[in-house]
Amino acid sequence: MSNYTLPRLEALRNLMRTKHIDAVIIPGTDPHQSEYLSDHWKFREYLTGFTGSNGTAVVTLHDAGLWTDSRYFLQAEQQLSDSGFTLYKENIPGQPTTLEWLAEALDEDAVLGVDGRLFSLMEANRIEMFCAQNGFMFAPDFRAAEAVWTNRPPRPMNPLFVHDEALAGETVESKISRVMDAVEQADADALLITALDDIAWLLNVRGSDVAYTPVAIAFAFVSDSQRVLFVDEEKITDEVAAHLKQYDVKVKPYDDIEKFLGKLKDSLTVMVDPNRVSDALGQAMLCNKHYAPSPIIALKGVKNDHQIAGFRKAMRYDGAAMVRMMMWLEQNVGNGITEVDVDLRLQQERAAFASNRGDSFHMIAGYKDHGAIVHYEASAESAYTLAPEGLLLIDTGGQYLEGTTDATRTISLGNPTDAEKHDFTLVLKGHLALARAVFPKGTTGVQLDVLARGPMWSEGITYLHGTGHGVGHFLGCHEGPQSIRMQINETPLALGMVTSNEPGIYKAGEYGIRTENLLLCVSAGSSEEWGEFYKFEDLTLFPYDTSLMDMAMLSAEEVDQINAYHAMVVDQLADLLSAEELAWLKNKCKKISK
Amino acid sequence: MSNYTLPRLEALRNLMRTKHIDAVIIPGTDPHQSEYLSDHWKFREYLTGFTGSNGTAVVTLHDAGLWTDSRYFLQAEQQLSDSGFTLYKENIPGQPTTLEWLAEALDEDAVLGVDGRLFSLMEANRIEMFCAQNGFMFAPDFRAAEAVWTNRPPRPMNPLFVHDEALAGETVESKISRVMDAVEQADADALLITALDDIAWLLNVRGSDVAYTPVAIAFAFVSDSQRVLFVDEEKITDEVAAHLKQYDVKVKPYDDIEKFLGKLKDSLTVMVDPNRVSDALGQAMLCNKHYAPSPIIALKGVKNDHQIAGFRKAMRYDGAAMVRMMMWLEQNVGNGITEVDVDLRLQQERAAFASNRGDSFHMIAGYKDHGAIVHYEASAESAYTLAPEGLLLIDTGGQYLEGTTDATRTISLGNPTDAEKHDFTLVLKGHLALARAVFPKGTTGVQLDVLARGPMWSEGITYLHGTGHGVGHFLGCHEGPQSIRMQINETPLALGMVTSNEPGIYKAGEYGIRTENLLLCVSAGSSEEWGEFYKFEDLTLFPYDTSLMDMAMLSAEEVDQINAYHAMVVDQLADLLSAEELAWLKNKCKKISK
Repeated sequence: MSNYTLPRLEALRNLMRTKHIDAVIIPGTDPHQSEYLSDHWKFREYLTGFTGSNGTAVVTLHDAGLWTDSRYFLQAEQQLSDSGFTLYKENIPGQPTTLEWLAEALDEDAVLGVDGRLFSLMEANRIEMFCAQNGFMFAPDFRAAEAVWTNRPPRPMNPLFVHDEALAGETVESKISRVMDAVEQADADALLITALDDIAWLLNVRGSDVAYTPVAIAFAFVSDSQRVLFVDEEKITDEVAAHLKQYDVKVKPYDDIEKFLGKLKDSLTVMVDPNRVSDALGQAMLCNKHYAPSPIIALKGVKNDHQIAGFRKAMRYDGAAMVRMMMWLEQNVGNGITEVDVDLRLQQERAAFASNRGDSFHMIAGYKDHGAIVHYEASAESAYTLAPEGLLLIDTGGQYLEGTTDATRTISLGNPTDAEKHDFTLVLKGHLALARAVFPKGTTGVQLDVLARGPMWSEGITYLHGTGHGVGHFLGCHEGPQSIRMQINETPLALGMVTSNEPGIYKAGEYGIRTENLLLCVSAGSSEEWGEFYKFEDLTLFPYDTSLMDMAMLSAEEVDQINAYHAMVVDQLADLLSAEELAWLKNKCKKISK
Repeated sequence: MSNYTLPRLEALRNLMRTKHIDAVIIPGTDPHQSEYLSDHWKFREYLTGFTGSNGTAVVTLHDAGLWTDSRYFLQAEQQLSDSGFTLYKENIPGQPTTLEWLAEALDEDAVLGVDGRLFSLMEANRIEMFCAQNGFMFAPDFRAAEAVWTNRPPRPMNPLFVHDEALAGETVESKISRVMDAVEQADADALLITALDDIAWLLNVRGSDVAYTPVAIAFAFVSDSQRVLFVDEEKITDEVAAHLKQYDVKVKPYDDIEKFLGKLKDSLTVMVDPNRVSDALGQAMLCNKHYAPSPIIALKGVKNDHQIAGFRKAMRYDGAAMVRMMMWLEQNVGNGITEVDVDLRLQQERAAFASNRGDSFHMIAGYKDHGAIVHYEASAESAYTLAPEGLLLIDTGGQYLEGTTDATRTISLGNPTDAEKHDFTLVLKGHLALARAVFPKGTTGVQLDVLARGPMWSEGITYLHGTGHGVGHFLGCHEGPQSIRMQINETPLALGMVTSNEPGIYKAGEYGIRTENLLLCVSAGSSEEWGEFYKFEDLTLFPYDTSLMDMAMLSAEEVDQINAYHAMVVDQLADLLSAEELAWLKNKCKKISK
């Protein structure tokens, strides 16, 4: 399928021979450890033909492998056929990890090369220790893409734009001051910021260099005496230049970062996140380093009142767009429309709102058994044509200047079966239980996760993804620091955090069901005896499919909760909808009873 | 109240002057970090007059303080009056910790003395670092009790006895072999065991040296080549000697442990738990040390089929004893009986079973507002007389050769109020939700805790103790490794673990409500898709007070669960009860309906 990759692989091996490199690890990330990459950094994709978001290639002079997780096994098998790469499956018993495989493949004194700009300091350190234990040499300055990638797409050069203070709800000055408080509390003098969303948040700027997340490729450095943004200077508009100048933020070329860090005074202590800074930059810093997670992660996770008001506005736009897309879908199902058409139609409905800036991630529109593939992305080749039967899972989100949305609805296209209704209602019961949770200040996501899973656990069913992730404000659709999942995350849920609530059931070969709203953490009052309590408010505005509810499985409390939610959806969306659309919505939100 | 302590304090200070010690910390524990102490080690109590289970005394030449937690504030205030000791409250803002207080009280170069036999290696290390930071000297060999405690009770000399293999369900050989597997997996050669219950479990012996837990004061050491029990040799009966000999376990004098450890070969690696071994023993070991939790904690936590069968038998005995005590209570309430009488009566009913070996902890019988004092222990002076009104909280457990019990019931002595019923039902709803949990293998207690707390959290109420602790098999009523609580404990719940389920609501000055059963973790089946699932079985056998249930608050599912549990209680206890007792029980277990 991808034998066009064979000459690319050969070119890489020629370079390896020239440079005396016996093996190379090529990760699927960029110098910012980004979730979404600009094309400039898709070297692993160029080399292997595999387009999945998670994948690591390893090449020796005689062999080559690609590692990915279960989401992508099928896709990787197809895309890697004849590519020269063997597929290795992550987290499958009996399959070697990249390092285990290398330990077998290499002889003592072999040289393992990587591009240290693409590995976090922590990860590079782990590989270096592996090399030391196995008698290999570690060469973290093997920069292959530059040499072997012909017609490499240039670094994106899209202009930055100012994120209005009225939307951000806080000035750059105030943000830098809070960040520097955290830096000083850690006895550090400065902070190096490498995560693109952290930079965008701190400086109230946005960009469009990568898909789905409105960020610009940049680095930033702040201390008491200097504030520097490292970015390709062509991307700085007059408006952005004036904005940055107002806050004494100097602009330097993107490529100057390494040199800049190398010149920092020995006596300076710079806070840096070893899981996010690249090995190349980490090594370039000869000053004192204070290793800690970026304090911006915690600050950015808590939304202020302006941001929350923005989220509410974005939810109304997104709910109205969903209503329009769903009406179109109902009218056209059976007329040849496909999963891809659903995606395109919703993008179009979103774009009707002036503040829309595209989607916040690639829509998952999974019809029938496609719904059971957790991260399914329909393509022209794979897309099913929709018929008036079976389940359609739609997981989608939009970027609006006012906020970021992320919602999942599973709907029946006709004649729901008892099994579909049963499983839909199990998922819904968990979703509703988490939404109505009340909990003391200090509670973490791992404590609440069972609320979403409990109903299906009772029947021996679970799902392997998390229940909830943080969501950025006109930024990344997935952000920290909090989460709601089976795994421990010590960050407590805090007032102003926005977190998803998305339990699911996946029946391989049959269907997938997931129901997702975004939740805002708000106060539930306090008492002298027991302290403060928090609860959630649903931000997402779109009805659950009542045709899929098994009423016998729902309690009176759950029925009341659904009716109250549906009443709020109608109330919040009404003034954005035409008479016909509102009638459609009201019908979907009709009061249900046991 | 306790000015008899003043000469004792003076004697200590005289010794301190002689030995050039400026301050001393006197903990409330023994060389085994035991929960319950034999009188021989109650030096802090001797010195201060304070009898609570948690308390640390600190004495300087001019000042003296005692630190304890909120359970004991009232008691400590009374017992410390005129004692020469000032009460300091743990975990109360504005109150210094022992070390903060010492940092203020001492001058530079002051010498801080402790008896290193009574501090864990970890704790002593923390104090030593504190001294280094503050310019104090640390003297871990200040053994004051020997010098100043007149008429000190001798070390207990009660005979050990063999814990039948049929009850233990596993031979000593098999246990040592499993322990040595764990030791060898950690690349260690031997294990030093200092926790009394670990020793009792490993060697299938029991003792009666301390209250409530059937253990003997001892140390043990096992390696491939030797198995040694350090214990006062007078306590070894012929039966125990033969039993130990059968498994090649040598007996050496208790006091030889330090010398023995000092003579271990340098090349030997001994696994030892730095949180449980004393500083004195840790320092005595000149061999290699591998610091890790004792592998026995995990092995002991999982009960085998013989132990589980024993637990079920013990539960039947305990349930029958509870029935008898409760019948007596109902007949005598209003006739002048007190909280203490309830305790004595239940002890008497338990003792009617040949295998009973007393209680597993001091009964908490808290009438009315006493019930809100979480660790209340009625005494002749404090005990309320019971009247036919208000709530009585009874938290009690028995030791039987077959197993250990721990249960709490809250009953109405007459005319329950709406508030009592409301709160009782909130607690019950949480208790029932945890009891019917189904969860995948790998789930930890922190994930399930919300099930017990959720109903009361919804009303802004919580409790500050854990929801569940492990329970030993004819051993400690509180043991690890698992727990169910708000705090993180990474040990998953495993098949065969016995854990308590004890949510509560405490209204200071009014009443306390707690409902507690022991739960056995059992299989709930498995599927190829989702793996193994576990659930709980109630082990405890005694009805919940139906007169306290607000039926409007209970779901149909909860009513069914209560009825099924009550039917099981009747079924399991029937053949131990007289006709009259059975009739009483059947009435308490009458089917309820919404």
